[in-house]
Amino acid sequence: MLRCLSVTTIKCSRGTLTYAASYSSNAPKVAVVLSGSGVYDGSELHEASSVLIHLTREGAVPECYAPNISQMHVVNHCKGAPEEGESRNVLVESARIARGKIQPLSELTASKAHAVVFPGGFGAAKNLSDFAVNGAEMKVDKDVERVLKEFHAARKPIGLCCIAPILAVKVFPNSKVTLGKKDDGKGKWPHAGAIDAAVTMGASHIEKNVNEVVIDEKNFLVTTPAFMYEGQFHEIYEGIGNMVKKVMELIRC
Amino acid sequence: MLRCLSVTTIKCSRGTLTYAASYSSNAPKVAVVLSGSGVYDGSELHEASSVLIHLTREGAVPECYAPNISQMHVVNHCKGAPEEGESRNVLVESARIARGKIQPLSELTASKAHAVVFPGGFGAAKNLSDFAVNGAEMKVDKDVERVLKEFHAARKPIGLCCIAPILAVKVFPNSKVTLGKKDDGKGKWPHAGAIDAAVTMGASHIEKNVNEVVIDEKNFLVTTPAFMYEGQFHEIYEGIGNMVKKVMELIRC
Repeated sequence: MLRCLSVTTIKCSRGTLTYAASYSSNAPKVAVVLSGSGVYDGSELHEASSVLIHLTREGAVPECYAPNISQMHVVNHCKGAPEEGESRNVLVESARIARGKIQPLSELTASKAHAVVFPGGFGAAKNLSDFAVNGAEMKVDKDVERVLKEFHAARKPIGLCCIAPILAVKVFPNSKVTLGKKDDGKGKWPHAGAIDAAVTMGASHIEKNVNEVVIDEKNFLVTTPAFMYEGQFHEIYEGIGNMVKKVMELIRC
Repeated sequence: MLRCLSVTTIKCSRGTLTYAASYSSNAPKVAVVLSGSGVYDGSELHEASSVLIHLTREGAVPECYAPNISQMHVVNHCKGAPEEGESRNVLVESARIARGKIQPLSELTASKAHAVVFPGGFGAAKNLSDFAVNGAEMKVDKDVERVLKEFHAARKPIGLCCIAPILAVKVFPNSKVTLGKKDDGKGKWPHAGAIDAAVTMGASHIEKNVNEVVIDEKNFLVTTPAFMYEGQFHEIYEGIGNMVKKVMELIRC
Protein backbone atom coordinates (compact mmCIF):
# COMPACT_ATOMS: atom_id res chain seq x y z
CA MET A 1 0.00 0.00 0.00
CA LEU A 2 1.08 3.53 -0.65
CA ARG A 3 1.72 5.70 2.34
CA CYS A 4 -0.58 8.13 0.59
CA LEU A 5 -3.01 6.52 -1.81
CA SER A 6 -4.43 9.87 -2.84
CA VAL A 7 -1.25 10.59 -4.75
CA THR A 8 -2.58 9.34 -8.05
CA THR A 9 -5.59 11.63 -7.91
CA ILE A 10 -4.03 14.81 -6.58
CA LYS A 11 -5.31 17.87 -8.41
CA CYS A 12 -2.54 20.34 -8.72
CA SER A 13 -4.15 23.75 -8.45
CA ARG A 14 -0.97 25.54 -7.40
CA GLY A 15 1.13 27.39 -9.94
CA THR A 16 4.61 26.09 -10.61
CA LEU A 17 6.33 29.09 -9.12
CA THR A 18 4.19 28.99 -6.01
CA TYR A 19 5.10 25.38 -5.52
CA ALA A 20 8.77 26.03 -6.11
CA ALA A 21 8.71 28.90 -3.66
CA SER A 22 7.10 26.69 -1.05
CA TYR A 23 10.22 24.55 -1.15
CA SER A 24 12.70 27.39 -1.28
CA SER A 25 13.80 27.16 2.35
CA ASN A 26 13.77 23.39 2.66
CA ALA A 27 13.84 22.00 -0.86
CA PRO A 28 13.71 18.21 -1.25
CA LYS A 29 16.86 16.68 -2.67
CA VAL A 30 16.51 14.20 -5.50
CA ALA A 31 19.45 12.02 -6.52
CA VAL A 32 19.86 11.53 -10.28
CA VAL A 33 21.93 8.47 -11.22
CA LEU A 34 23.77 8.86 -14.53
CA SER A 35 25.55 6.23 -16.61
CA GLY A 36 27.71 8.24 -19.02
CA SER A 37 26.73 10.87 -21.60
CA GLY A 38 25.24 9.76 -24.89
CA VAL A 39 22.38 7.45 -25.83
CA TYR A 40 24.41 4.52 -27.20
CA ASP A 41 26.96 4.08 -24.39
CA GLY A 42 25.71 6.25 -21.51
CA SER A 43 22.74 8.21 -20.22
CA GLU A 44 20.36 9.43 -22.92
CA LEU A 45 21.30 13.04 -22.37
CA HIS A 46 17.96 14.54 -23.39
CA GLU A 47 16.24 12.30 -20.85
CA ALA A 48 18.77 13.31 -18.19
CA SER A 49 18.36 16.99 -19.06
CA SER A 50 14.57 16.72 -18.97
CA VAL A 51 14.76 15.11 -15.54
CA LEU A 52 16.91 17.97 -14.25
CA ILE A 53 14.69 20.68 -15.79
CA HIS A 54 11.51 19.21 -14.35
CA LEU A 55 13.11 18.69 -10.94
CA THR A 56 14.22 22.31 -10.55
CA ARG A 57 10.88 23.56 -11.86
CA GLU A 58 9.15 21.43 -9.22
CA GLY A 59 11.28 23.03 -6.54
CA ALA A 60 13.65 20.11 -5.95
CA VAL A 61 17.43 20.23 -5.70
CA PRO A 62 18.86 17.60 -8.07
CA GLU A 63 22.14 15.98 -7.06
CA CYS A 64 23.93 13.89 -9.66
CA TYR A 65 25.75 10.61 -9.05
CA ALA A 66 27.42 8.02 -11.28
CA PRO A 67 29.54 4.93 -10.71
CA ASN A 68 33.29 5.49 -10.89
CA ILE A 69 33.88 2.64 -13.34
CA SER A 70 34.91 2.20 -16.96
CA GLN A 71 32.21 2.27 -19.61
CA MET A 72 31.42 -1.10 -21.21
CA HIS A 73 32.63 0.52 -24.44
CA VAL A 74 32.77 3.86 -26.25
CA VAL A 75 30.34 4.18 -29.15
CA ASN A 76 31.09 6.53 -32.04
CA HIS A 77 27.62 8.13 -32.26
CA CYS A 78 28.15 9.04 -35.93
CA LYS A 79 28.80 5.42 -36.89
CA GLY A 80 26.66 3.76 -34.22
CA ALA A 81 29.53 1.35 -33.55
CA PRO A 82 32.10 0.90 -30.76
CA GLU A 83 35.55 2.47 -31.14
CA GLU A 84 38.17 -0.22 -30.69
CA GLY A 85 40.70 0.51 -27.97
CA GLU A 86 39.01 3.62 -26.58
CA SER A 87 38.13 3.82 -22.90
CA ARG A 88 36.10 6.34 -20.91
CA ASN A 89 34.99 6.58 -17.28
CA VAL A 90 31.28 6.65 -16.46
CA LEU A 91 31.64 9.25 -13.68
CA VAL A 92 33.84 11.56 -15.77
CA GLU A 93 31.54 11.43 -18.81
CA SER A 94 28.42 11.82 -16.67
CA ALA A 95 29.97 15.03 -15.34
CA ARG A 96 29.26 16.55 -18.77
CA ILE A 97 25.54 16.29 -18.01
CA ALA A 98 26.03 17.39 -14.39
CA ARG A 99 28.10 20.44 -15.41
CA GLY A 100 30.86 19.16 -13.12
CA LYS A 101 28.69 18.82 -10.02
CA ILE A 102 28.63 15.08 -9.48
CA GLN A 103 29.59 12.51 -6.86
CA PRO A 104 30.55 8.84 -7.03
CA LEU A 105 27.53 6.57 -6.71
CA SER A 106 29.30 4.78 -3.86
CA GLU A 107 28.60 7.87 -1.74
CA LEU A 108 24.84 7.89 -2.29
CA THR A 109 22.74 6.60 0.59
CA ALA A 110 19.00 6.88 1.11
CA SER A 111 19.61 9.35 3.94
CA LYS A 112 21.02 11.88 1.44
CA ALA A 113 17.96 12.36 -0.78
CA HIS A 114 14.17 12.27 -0.70
CA ALA A 115 13.98 10.28 -3.93
CA VAL A 116 16.16 8.84 -6.68
CA VAL A 117 15.70 9.02 -10.45
CA PHE A 118 17.39 6.90 -13.14
CA PRO A 119 17.30 8.34 -16.67
CA GLY A 120 17.58 5.83 -19.52
CA GLY A 121 19.94 5.36 -22.43
CA PHE A 122 22.00 2.27 -23.19
CA GLY A 123 24.26 3.19 -20.27
CA ALA A 124 21.62 1.76 -17.93
CA ALA A 125 21.88 -1.54 -19.79
CA LYS A 126 25.66 -1.49 -20.33
CA ASN A 127 27.21 0.33 -17.35
CA LEU A 128 24.61 0.16 -14.55
CA SER A 129 23.86 -3.45 -15.46
CA ASP A 130 24.76 -5.98 -18.14
CA PHE A 131 21.24 -6.26 -19.54
CA ALA A 132 22.45 -5.31 -23.04
CA VAL A 133 24.62 -8.43 -23.04
CA ASN A 134 22.77 -10.94 -20.88
CA GLY A 135 19.08 -10.00 -21.16
CA ALA A 136 16.92 -11.70 -18.52
CA GLU A 137 20.08 -13.27 -17.05
CA MET A 138 21.34 -9.78 -16.22
CA LYS A 139 23.30 -8.63 -13.21
CA VAL A 140 23.05 -5.14 -11.69
CA ASP A 141 26.05 -3.04 -10.61
CA LYS A 142 26.48 -3.55 -6.85
CA ASP A 143 26.13 0.13 -5.97
CA VAL A 144 23.05 0.49 -8.17
CA GLU A 145 21.51 -2.53 -6.44
CA ARG A 146 22.44 -1.20 -3.00
CA VAL A 147 20.97 2.26 -3.76
CA LEU A 148 17.74 0.80 -5.11
CA LYS A 149 17.34 -1.45 -2.05
CA GLU A 150 18.13 1.36 0.39
CA PHE A 151 15.61 3.81 -1.10
CA HIS A 152 13.08 0.98 -1.33
CA ALA A 153 13.58 0.06 2.32
CA ALA A 154 13.24 3.73 3.32
CA ARG A 155 9.97 4.00 1.34
CA LYS A 156 11.42 6.77 -0.79
CA PRO A 157 10.20 7.02 -4.39
CA ILE A 158 12.26 5.71 -7.31
CA GLY A 159 11.71 7.15 -10.79
CA LEU A 160 13.00 5.33 -13.87
CA CYS A 161 12.51 5.88 -17.59
CA CYS A 162 13.26 4.28 -20.94
CA ILE A 163 15.24 1.04 -20.35
CA ALA A 164 16.18 1.94 -16.74
CA PRO A 165 13.06 0.24 -15.25
CA ILE A 166 14.78 -3.06 -16.07
CA LEU A 167 17.07 -2.34 -13.09
CA ALA A 168 14.09 -2.30 -10.74
CA VAL A 169 12.62 -5.40 -12.39
CA LYS A 170 15.80 -7.29 -11.51
CA VAL A 171 16.15 -5.98 -7.95
CA PHE A 172 12.48 -6.10 -6.87
CA PRO A 173 10.67 -9.33 -7.73
CA ASN A 174 7.09 -8.78 -8.90
CA SER A 175 7.57 -5.08 -9.62
CA LYS A 176 5.07 -3.31 -11.88
CA VAL A 177 6.60 -1.15 -14.61
CA THR A 178 6.25 0.14 -18.14
CA LEU A 179 8.83 -0.18 -20.88
CA GLY A 180 6.42 1.26 -23.42
CA LYS A 181 4.63 -0.92 -25.93
CA LYS A 182 5.39 -3.94 -28.03
CA ASP A 183 4.08 -2.44 -31.25
CA ASP A 184 1.70 0.24 -32.48
CA GLY A 185 1.76 -0.90 -36.10
CA LYS A 186 3.93 2.07 -37.10
CA GLY A 187 7.36 0.81 -36.08
CA LYS A 188 7.70 3.43 -33.34
CA TRP A 189 8.30 0.90 -30.52
CA PRO A 190 11.42 -1.03 -31.57
CA HIS A 191 12.38 -2.44 -28.16
CA ALA A 192 9.78 -5.15 -27.56
CA GLY A 193 12.50 -7.58 -26.52
CA ALA A 194 12.98 -5.67 -23.28
CA ILE A 195 9.33 -6.18 -22.40
CA ASP A 196 9.63 -9.92 -22.99
CA ALA A 197 12.72 -10.03 -20.77
CA ALA A 198 10.97 -8.08 -17.99
CA VAL A 199 8.06 -10.51 -18.00
CA THR A 200 10.47 -13.45 -17.97
CA MET A 201 12.10 -11.91 -14.88
CA GLY A 202 8.72 -11.82 -13.10
CA ALA A 203 7.58 -8.24 -13.69
CA SER A 204 4.05 -7.12 -14.29
CA HIS A 205 4.41 -5.06 -17.46
CA ILE A 206 1.82 -2.40 -18.29
CA GLU A 207 1.80 -0.97 -21.82
CA LYS A 208 1.81 2.83 -21.80
CA ASN A 209 2.16 5.68 -24.26
CA VAL A 210 5.12 8.07 -24.17
CA ASN A 211 3.15 10.65 -22.16
CA GLU A 212 1.98 8.17 -19.52
CA VAL A 213 3.44 6.69 -16.34
CA VAL A 214 3.00 3.51 -14.32
CA ILE A 215 3.01 3.78 -10.54
CA ASP A 216 3.97 0.68 -8.60
CA GLU A 217 2.33 1.47 -5.26
CA LYS A 218 3.90 -1.50 -3.51
CA ASN A 219 7.47 -0.76 -4.50
CA PHE A 220 7.14 3.01 -4.81
CA LEU A 221 8.29 3.02 -8.45
CA VAL A 222 7.32 5.52 -11.14
CA THR A 223 8.19 4.55 -14.74
CA THR A 224 7.60 6.08 -18.19
CA PRO A 225 8.66 4.95 -21.69
CA ALA A 226 10.69 8.04 -22.81
CA PHE A 227 12.91 7.06 -25.77
CA MET A 228 11.65 3.46 -25.81
CA TYR A 229 9.31 5.33 -28.16
CA GLU A 230 10.83 6.88 -31.25
CA GLY A 231 9.15 10.18 -30.54
CA GLN A 232 9.96 13.83 -30.94
CA PHE A 233 12.07 15.61 -28.36
CA HIS A 234 9.15 17.45 -26.74
CA GLU A 235 7.15 14.23 -26.40
CA ILE A 236 9.97 12.61 -24.44
CA TYR A 237 10.37 15.77 -22.35
CA GLU A 238 6.69 15.85 -21.42
CA GLY A 239 6.48 12.16 -20.50
CA ILE A 240 9.47 12.58 -18.22
CA GLY A 241 7.78 15.64 -16.73
CA ASN A 242 4.83 13.43 -15.76
CA MET A 243 7.20 10.94 -14.13
CA VAL A 244 8.98 13.68 -12.17
CA LYS A 245 5.69 15.19 -11.00
CA LYS A 246 4.57 11.80 -9.66
CA VAL A 247 7.90 11.30 -7.89
CA MET A 248 7.50 14.72 -6.28
CA GLU A 249 3.95 13.88 -5.22
CA LEU A 250 5.16 10.67 -3.61
CA ILE A 251 7.81 12.63 -1.70
CA ARG A 252 5.06 14.77 -0.21
CA CYS A 253 2.95 11.83 0.92
CA MET B 1 14.10 46.84 -41.25
CA LEU B 2 12.41 43.55 -40.51
CA ARG B 3 10.43 41.98 -43.27
CA CYS B 4 7.71 41.74 -40.67
CA LEU B 5 7.95 44.36 -37.96
CA SER B 6 4.88 43.04 -36.20
CA VAL B 7 6.87 40.02 -35.10
CA THR B 8 7.82 41.50 -31.76
CA THR B 9 4.20 42.14 -30.82
CA ILE B 10 2.55 38.98 -32.11
CA LYS B 11 0.05 37.64 -29.60
CA CYS B 12 0.12 33.92 -29.73
CA SER B 13 -3.43 32.76 -29.10
CA ARG B 14 -2.98 29.41 -30.82
CA GLY B 15 -2.36 26.27 -28.77
CA THR B 16 0.98 24.55 -29.21
CA LEU B 17 -0.51 21.46 -30.77
CA THR B 18 -2.60 23.45 -33.21
CA TYR B 19 0.49 25.29 -34.31
CA ALA B 20 2.51 22.14 -34.63
CA ALA B 21 -0.25 20.50 -36.63
CA SER B 22 -0.32 23.46 -38.99
CA TYR B 23 3.26 22.62 -39.93
CA SER B 24 2.80 18.88 -40.13
CA SER B 25 2.68 18.63 -43.91
CA ASN B 26 5.36 21.19 -44.66
CA ALA B 27 7.34 21.66 -41.46
CA PRO B 28 10.08 24.30 -41.50
CA LYS B 29 13.58 22.93 -41.11
CA VAL B 30 15.87 24.58 -38.58
CA ALA B 31 19.59 23.85 -38.60
CA VAL B 32 21.18 23.47 -35.16
CA VAL B 33 24.95 23.98 -35.13
CA LEU B 34 26.71 22.02 -32.38
CA SER B 35 30.30 22.32 -31.13
CA GLY B 36 30.88 19.11 -29.16
CA SER B 37 29.01 17.71 -26.14
CA GLY B 38 29.70 19.18 -22.71
CA VAL B 39 29.74 22.71 -21.34
CA TYR B 40 33.50 23.11 -20.88
CA ASP B 41 34.75 21.91 -24.27
CA GLY B 42 31.65 21.63 -26.46
CA SER B 43 27.99 22.57 -26.73
CA GLU B 44 26.26 23.12 -23.40
CA LEU B 45 24.14 20.03 -23.76
CA HIS B 46 21.15 21.29 -21.75
CA GLU B 47 21.01 24.35 -23.99
CA ALA B 48 21.23 22.15 -27.08
CA SER B 49 18.55 19.80 -25.73
CA SER B 50 16.27 22.72 -24.86
CA VAL B 51 16.66 24.09 -28.40
CA LEU B 52 15.66 20.72 -29.87
CA ILE B 53 12.70 20.26 -27.51
CA HIS B 54 11.31 23.72 -28.23
CA LEU B 55 11.85 23.32 -31.99
CA THR B 56 9.86 20.08 -32.25
CA ARG B 57 7.15 21.47 -29.98
CA GLU B 58 6.88 24.47 -32.31
CA GLY B 59 6.41 22.13 -35.26
CA ALA B 60 9.88 22.52 -36.76
CA VAL B 61 12.19 19.74 -37.95
CA PRO B 62 15.61 20.26 -36.35
CA GLU B 63 18.64 19.13 -38.35
CA CYS B 64 21.96 19.00 -36.54
CA TYR B 65 25.34 20.01 -37.95
CA ALA B 66 28.84 20.33 -36.54
CA PRO B 67 32.29 21.01 -37.97
CA ASN B 68 34.36 17.91 -38.71
CA ILE B 69 37.42 19.17 -36.82
CA SER B 70 39.34 18.33 -33.66
CA GLN B 71 38.22 19.91 -30.40
CA MET B 72 40.54 22.61 -29.05
CA HIS B 73 40.98 20.27 -26.09
CA VAL B 74 39.14 17.67 -24.01
CA VAL B 75 38.09 18.86 -20.57
CA ASN B 76 37.61 16.40 -17.73
CA HIS B 77 34.31 17.76 -16.43
CA CYS B 78 34.93 16.34 -12.94
CA LYS B 79 38.20 18.25 -12.60
CA GLY B 80 37.30 21.23 -14.81
CA ALA B 81 40.73 20.89 -16.44
CA PRO B 82 41.99 19.67 -19.83
CA GLU B 83 43.19 16.08 -20.19
CA GLU B 84 46.71 16.08 -21.59
CA GLY B 85 47.12 14.06 -24.78
CA GLU B 86 43.43 13.32 -25.32
CA SER B 87 41.78 14.22 -28.61
CA ARG B 88 38.15 14.17 -29.70
CA ASN B 89 36.33 15.21 -32.88
CA VAL B 90 33.66 17.93 -32.71
CA LEU B 91 31.31 16.20 -35.18
CA VAL B 92 31.61 12.80 -33.48
CA GLU B 93 31.01 14.19 -29.99
CA SER B 94 28.14 16.41 -31.19
CA ALA B 95 26.49 13.24 -32.52
CA ARG B 96 25.85 12.32 -28.87
CA ILE B 97 23.43 15.25 -28.67
CA ALA B 98 22.03 14.55 -32.14
CA ARG B 99 21.43 10.85 -31.37
CA GLY B 100 23.54 9.99 -34.41
CA LYS B 101 21.58 12.14 -36.87
CA ILE B 102 24.10 14.82 -37.78
CA GLN B 103 25.89 16.19 -40.84
CA PRO B 104 29.20 18.01 -41.33
CA LEU B 105 28.79 21.78 -41.12
CA SER B 106 30.48 22.05 -44.52
CA GLU B 107 27.27 20.66 -46.01
CA LEU B 108 24.96 23.29 -44.52
CA THR B 109 23.79 26.01 -46.90
CA ALA B 110 21.03 28.56 -46.40
CA SER B 111 18.92 26.75 -48.99
CA LYS B 112 18.67 23.72 -46.68
CA ALA B 113 16.89 25.33 -43.70
CA HIS B 114 14.50 28.12 -42.80
CA ALA B 115 16.63 29.28 -39.88
CA VAL B 116 19.79 28.37 -37.97
CA VAL B 117 20.34 28.16 -34.20
CA PHE B 118 23.65 28.10 -32.30
CA PRO B 119 23.46 26.78 -28.70
CA GLY B 120 26.17 27.98 -26.34
CA GLY B 121 28.80 26.30 -24.21
CA PHE B 122 32.54 26.84 -24.36
CA GLY B 123 32.59 24.91 -27.64
CA ALA B 124 31.30 28.06 -29.35
CA ALA B 125 34.32 29.94 -28.00
CA LYS B 126 36.86 27.12 -28.46
CA ASN B 127 35.80 25.09 -31.51
CA LEU B 128 33.52 27.39 -33.54
CA SER B 129 35.86 30.31 -32.88
CA ASP B 130 38.94 31.11 -30.82
CA PHE B 131 37.22 33.66 -28.59
CA ALA B 132 38.22 31.74 -25.45
CA VAL B 133 41.88 32.33 -26.35
CA ASN B 134 41.93 35.62 -28.23
CA GLY B 135 38.94 37.59 -26.92
CA ALA B 136 38.08 40.62 -29.08
CA GLU B 137 40.87 39.60 -31.48
CA MET B 138 38.97 36.38 -32.20
CA LYS B 139 38.63 34.52 -35.48
CA VAL B 140 35.58 32.47 -36.47
CA ASP B 141 35.72 29.00 -38.06
CA LYS B 142 35.42 29.47 -41.83
CA ASP B 143 32.31 27.29 -42.18
CA VAL B 144 30.63 29.01 -39.25
CA GLU B 145 31.36 32.39 -40.84
CA ARG B 146 30.11 31.20 -44.23
CA VAL B 147 26.88 29.78 -42.74
CA LEU B 148 26.18 32.95 -40.77
CA LYS B 149 26.75 35.12 -43.86
CA GLU B 150 24.61 32.90 -46.10
CA PHE B 151 21.61 32.85 -43.74
CA HIS B 152 22.06 36.59 -43.18
CA ALA B 153 22.11 37.29 -46.92
CA ALA B 154 19.00 35.12 -47.38
CA ARG B 155 17.19 37.05 -44.61
CA LYS B 156 16.69 33.86 -42.63
CA PRO B 157 16.66 34.16 -38.82
CA ILE B 158 19.67 33.26 -36.71
CA GLY B 159 19.18 32.27 -33.05
CA LEU B 160 22.12 32.25 -30.64
CA CYS B 161 22.36 31.81 -26.88
CA CYS B 162 24.86 31.98 -24.04
CA ILE B 163 28.31 32.86 -25.47
CA ALA B 164 27.34 31.97 -29.07
CA PRO B 165 26.17 35.55 -29.89
CA ILE B 166 29.87 36.49 -29.91
CA LEU B 167 30.06 34.69 -33.29
CA ALA B 168 27.49 37.06 -34.77
CA VAL B 169 29.19 40.05 -33.15
CA LYS B 170 32.38 39.18 -35.03
CA VAL B 171 30.75 38.43 -38.39
CA PHE B 172 28.17 41.26 -38.48
CA PRO B 173 29.56 44.68 -37.54
CA ASN B 174 27.14 46.74 -35.45
CA SER B 175 24.97 43.77 -34.47
CA LYS B 176 22.68 44.09 -31.47
CA VAL B 177 22.81 41.21 -29.01
CA THR B 178 22.58 40.19 -25.37
CA LEU B 179 25.19 38.24 -23.45
CA GLY B 180 23.25 38.70 -20.23
CA LYS B 181 24.28 41.21 -17.59
CA LYS B 182 27.48 42.47 -16.10
CA ASP B 183 26.37 42.03 -12.52
CA ASP B 184 23.23 41.78 -10.42
CA GLY B 185 24.99 42.10 -7.09
CA LYS B 186 24.52 38.40 -6.37
CA GLY B 187 27.40 36.92 -8.37
CA LYS B 188 25.05 35.17 -10.80
CA TRP B 189 26.53 36.80 -13.93
CA PRO B 190 30.20 35.75 -13.94
CA HIS B 191 30.96 36.42 -17.63
CA ALA B 192 31.06 40.22 -17.82
CA GLY B 193 34.32 40.05 -19.80
CA ALA B 194 32.41 38.75 -22.82
CA ILE B 195 30.20 41.84 -22.78
CA ASP B 196 33.24 44.13 -22.70
CA ALA B 197 34.74 42.23 -25.66
CA ALA B 198 31.50 42.45 -27.66
CA VAL B 199 31.36 46.21 -27.16
CA THR B 200 35.03 46.51 -28.14
CA MET B 201 34.17 44.64 -31.35
CA GLY B 202 31.47 47.17 -32.18
CA ALA B 203 28.31 45.49 -30.93
CA SER B 204 25.37 47.19 -29.32
CA HIS B 205 24.95 45.16 -26.13
CA ILE B 206 21.56 45.08 -24.38
CA GLU B 207 21.44 43.73 -20.82
CA LYS B 208 18.72 41.10 -20.43
CA ASN B 209 17.52 38.62 -17.83
CA VAL B 210 17.70 34.86 -18.42
CA ASN B 211 14.05 34.73 -19.55
CA GLU B 212 14.39 37.57 -22.06
CA VAL B 213 15.60 37.90 -25.66
CA VAL B 214 17.07 40.63 -27.83
CA ILE B 215 15.90 40.87 -31.44
CA ASP B 216 18.26 42.54 -33.88
CA GLU B 217 15.77 43.54 -36.56
CA LYS B 218 18.46 44.64 -39.00
CA ASN B 219 20.49 41.46 -38.88
CA PHE B 220 17.64 39.06 -38.07
CA LEU B 221 19.34 37.83 -34.89
CA VAL B 222 17.60 36.50 -31.77
CA THR B 223 19.77 36.15 -28.65
CA THR B 224 19.19 35.12 -25.02
CA PRO B 225 21.60 34.75 -22.06
CA ALA B 226 20.98 31.04 -21.17
CA PHE B 227 23.88 29.78 -19.00
CA MET B 228 25.66 33.16 -19.04
CA TYR B 229 23.40 33.29 -15.97
CA GLU B 230 24.06 30.79 -13.21
CA GLY B 231 20.42 29.80 -13.11
CA GLN B 232 18.44 26.67 -12.52
CA PHE B 233 17.84 24.22 -15.35
CA HIS B 234 14.24 25.25 -15.95
CA GLU B 235 15.15 28.93 -16.11
CA ILE B 236 17.65 28.24 -18.90
CA TYR B 237 15.10 26.02 -20.66
CA GLU B 238 12.43 28.70 -20.59
CA GLY B 239 14.71 31.50 -21.83
CA ILE B 240 15.75 29.31 -24.74
CA GLY B 241 12.08 28.60 -25.40
CA ASN B 242 11.49 32.33 -25.81
CA MET B 243 14.42 32.53 -28.27
CA VAL B 244 13.10 29.59 -30.31
CA LYS B 245 9.58 31.05 -30.41
CA LYS B 246 10.94 34.33 -31.80
CA VAL B 247 13.00 32.48 -34.41
CA MET B 248 9.87 30.60 -35.47
CA GLU B 249 7.89 33.85 -35.66
CA LEU B 250 10.58 35.37 -37.88
CA ILE B 251 10.39 32.33 -40.18
CA ARG B 252 6.71 33.00 -40.66
CA CYS B 253 7.16 36.67 -41.52
